[in-house]
Amino acid sequence: MATLMENEVFKAFASYAAIVTLKMMLMGPVTVYFRFTRGSFSNEEDVAKETNEEKKKKMLRAHPDVERAQRCHHNDLENIIPFFFIGLLYALSGPKLSIALIHFRVFTASRIFHSFAYILAFPQPSRALSYLLGMLTTFSMAFNLLITVFVL
Amino acid sequence: MATLMENEVFKAFASYAAIVTLKMMLMGPVTVYFRFTRGSFSNEEDVAKETNEEKKKKMLRAHPDVERAQRCHHNDLENIIPFFFIGLLYALSGPKLSIALIHFRVFTASRIFHSFAYILAFPQPSRALSYLLGMLTTFSMAFNLLITVFVL
Amino acid sequence: MATLMENEVFKAFASYAAIVTLKMMLMGPVTVYFRFTRGSFSNEEDVAKETNEEKKKKMLRAHPDVERAQRCHHNDLENIIPFFFIGLLYALSGPKLSIALIHFRVFTASRIFHSFAYILAFPQPSRALSYLLGMLTTFSMAFNLLITVFVL
Repeated sequence: MATLMENEVFKAFASYAAIVTLKMMLMGPVTVYFRFTRGSFSNEEDVAKETNEEKKKKMLRAHPDVERAQRCHHNDLENIIPFFFIGLLYALSGPKLSIALIHFRVFTASRIFHSFAYILAFPQPSRALSYLLGMLTTFSMAFNLLITVFVL
Repeated sequence: MATLMENEVFKAFASYAAIVTLKMMLMGPVTVYFRFTRGSFSNEEDVAKETNEEKKKKMLRAHPDVERAQRCHHNDLENIIPFFFIGLLYALSGPKLSIALIHFRVFTASRIFHSFAYILAFPQPSRALSYLLGMLTTFSMAFNLLITVFVL
Repeated sequence: MATLMENEVFKAFASYAAIVTLKMMLMGPVTVYFRFTRGSFSNEEDVAKETNEEKKKKMLRAHPDVERAQRCHHNDLENIIPFFFIGLLYALSGPKLSIALIHFRVFTASRIFHSFAYILAFPQPSRALSYLLGMLTTFSMAFNLLITVFVL
């Protein structure tokens, strides 16, 4: 066990994976922030304090800013989870530290940029390219993993 | 390999992670249960047996109970997945068993309570607080992980 | 570390987990493909090139094929993620290679079939059964894991 956390590649993976997971988690509070500032909720019990029935109904309507934050969060789930799965196995398959670091850094940078591009609605294709870059990084790790350990 | 599963912290992580993952998986059948009892489906092929075109259309409409179960499931994905990622790396970083157990237990309890609060529509802020508690537990593990292994 | 990737069960897990993760990731490009061929996007900035306001509005409407791909992707997240979590811990708990292989192969086959069944709208209950089979495989691994390592 101690040996895992003495391995430089695994320590680097743990660090970048933690950063990118925390970034993904932050999308939760960002959505909550938009819910309160835009007054847009999903559940009856979340607007129970509001006594005016008219206002209550309005507060249960979707708001584009909340939906944008949710799409950004969802895109993180779709991309950061595969990075973690593939990256963990890749880190355990004994890659060179320098090459592993390039993968971890490019992925982390691409997803941080992606979130800004999504929330702040940067002109395309900035968001599409950061999405693609992150995905290609994960594909590259998967390729390196599979040529090392492939057993069916 | 044997050494991992001889480590008390890792065994505890494996146990709590399995419980919380099974809890998350159960949201699938819960949603299916609401689909059948409320008669609300998403796909044409799921209602193919219904020959009455009018009834078929009705069965393809969203139902609030199904949507509530889906939101609960989705919230699990957004919170239990980061717990697994951070918790796995944290468990490998050599924490004290007693402190690790507090994290695993508080998180597991908070998410089980959260599901009941969501599905049964408990008055707020019960659901919000259990969401927050689970998130803070994961942040605490991430903090402890990063001060142990941080390498960029 | 080297010991993990010398273990036959862990290598098999890494291989099947990588395949099934790549399959899940491919749902992203599949959704993008439907977005472009059906002309259905979610964000204003994605349709910025379109100057005709009427056409722009149409391009921001949901399309059933895009939504179907998204539901398929979402179902993958709900099922492949628990497989990875439970499967990783199960692979570390020292199962027999032959029994582990049955689990990994049945799960992988069931999810590949599930995607075809979803995207091509096979008649039910083909999709439901492949969903159930994958879930039962994960439950079986969870059961075997918990009887080996259970510590609360």
